[in-house]
Parts: sequence; C-alpha cells; structure tokens
Amino acid sequence: MTAYDPQNVFAKILCGELPAHEVYEDDATLAFMDIMPRGDGHVLVIPRTPCRNLLDAPPEALAAVMITAQKVARAAMAAFGADGVTVQQFNESAGGQVVFHLHVHVIPRFEGVSLRPHTGDMADQALLAEQAARIRARL
Amino acid sequence: MTAYDPQNVFAKILCGELPAHEVYEDDATLAFMDIMPRGDGHVLVIPRTPCRNLLDAPPEALAAVMITAQKVARAAMAAFGADGVTVQQFNESAGGQVVFHLHVHVIPRFEGVSLRPHTGDMADQALLAEQAARIRARL
Repeated sequence: MTAYDPQNVFAKILCGELPAHEVYEDDATLAFMDIMPRGDGHVLVIPRTPCRNLLDAPPEALAAVMITAQKVARAAMAAFGADGVTVQQFNESAGGQVVFHLHVHVIPRFEGVSLRPHTGDMADQALLAEQAARIRARL
Repeated sequence: MTAYDPQNVFAKILCGELPAHEVYEDDATLAFMDIMPRGDGHVLVIPRTPCRNLLDAPPEALAAVMITAQKVARAAMAAFGADGVTVQQFNESAGGQVVFHLHVHVIPRFEGVSLRPHTGDMADQALLAEQAARIRARL
C-alpha cells in the first residue's frame, strides 16, 4: 500500500493550514462539512491519527471515527429532519477514494431524494456555514 | 425511530435459524457473504447485539463491527487481489436500508469495474461458498 501523504488536504485541515466548516471535534476525531456535498448536511468524519484509509487505520482510530459518525448522524437527522442517513467510506482509488486520509461520509437522506452526483462543484460557503451551525446546535 | 424487529433475517442468521456463508465471527460480530452481491467478495458485517442501525447501536457494538469490517476488508483485498474496498452502511429506508439489523457492507473493488446494480437476484450458492472460503483462508 502507498504510504500516507502528510500533504493531503485533510491533514492540512487538521493542522489549521486549510479552513473547514467544523461541526464536532474531540481528542481523536474531527467532523466538518464536505465542500462537494452529495446532499444537504453531508459531513466528513476523520481521525486525528494519520492514516490513509480503513486498510492501515489503527483500530482505535477507526472505532473513534465511527462513534463520532454516530453522534453526527443523530445530530444531522435532528437538524435537517432527515428520514435516514447513508454512510460511505472509500478505500483506494478503485474503491472511490479521492483524499487519502481516512474519512467517513455521513449523508442525511430524505424520502424520494437521490444522492446528488459527484460534479466537482463546490457548495456555497455561506450555505455550508449555516448547515454546520444547524448540526452543531444538535450536538 | 421504529423498534428493533427480532424477526429480521439477520437476527435469524445470528440464531442459526437461517443459513449464511460465514467468513468470520467473534464474541461481538459475525461476517458473511451478501447473497445479492454488488461485486465479487461482497461481505456483510453485523453485531450480535440487537440494534436497528447506526442510529440506535451501542457505541461498543458499532466499534466492534468496524474493527471486524477492517479485518474482512484486508482479507478480501488479499483473497481477490482487489485494488480497493468500498464500505457502505445504510440507515432507514430513505438511507438505503432494507434489512433492519445494523450491517456494514464491505465490497472489494477493481480498477475500471463499477458496482453491480441492486437487482434482487441471488448469487449462485456454490460461488458464494467458494468466495467465503477464499476470504476465510486469509483471516
């Protein structure tokens, strides 16, 4: 497996070099809005521990990420009045991974609304800030 | 949230009332082949603890499921010479959930090969048995 690249964008968010619309943090994890959301309230959860994905993650980092994902999922359900949540986690390019720091997608879902396609377009920053605030208010 | 239904098919697999092509088990989790696989080597990981999905799961059950998913992902990568792994976890109907016992999908991925669509068709049982044996041999 390819080594962890400490210059990936999530590493830069962790060290404060890049901004993010944060929704939750603790000693082991950070959660923030996906800037290319596939649905309203789409959050990413990452470990502070440097690891590429599920395949090389320390088990305790992986467990911490999922427990944060659970908190975020419950908060996002409440914040958006969602009907469900889809969780995705991609490993290596063939598995759908684009940024090579372990991350879990938490996407609120609504009856009859499909996931938006990956377009590469960034969402409006003010909208993401507002959505982050709504989720934080439920955490 | 709707209460847990102890008659769901994964509960029946856990108590031995229904068969499954098992690949791994421990005190907290069970992993077995998805009978409607979206790719070769598609495995489901479930907790022994009764819970509907991520939203009501005890954190320790969720953590155990993900640590088993990691073991299975590594084994399936090796067993099938896969290039990546896609992990999915669906919550409530709007989130894509069909069976209402928490489960994590672990799907080996190959460069240039898309996930197969959900058709509702069951895979060949002999093929699933053979794939389960290949994954078990790597665990």
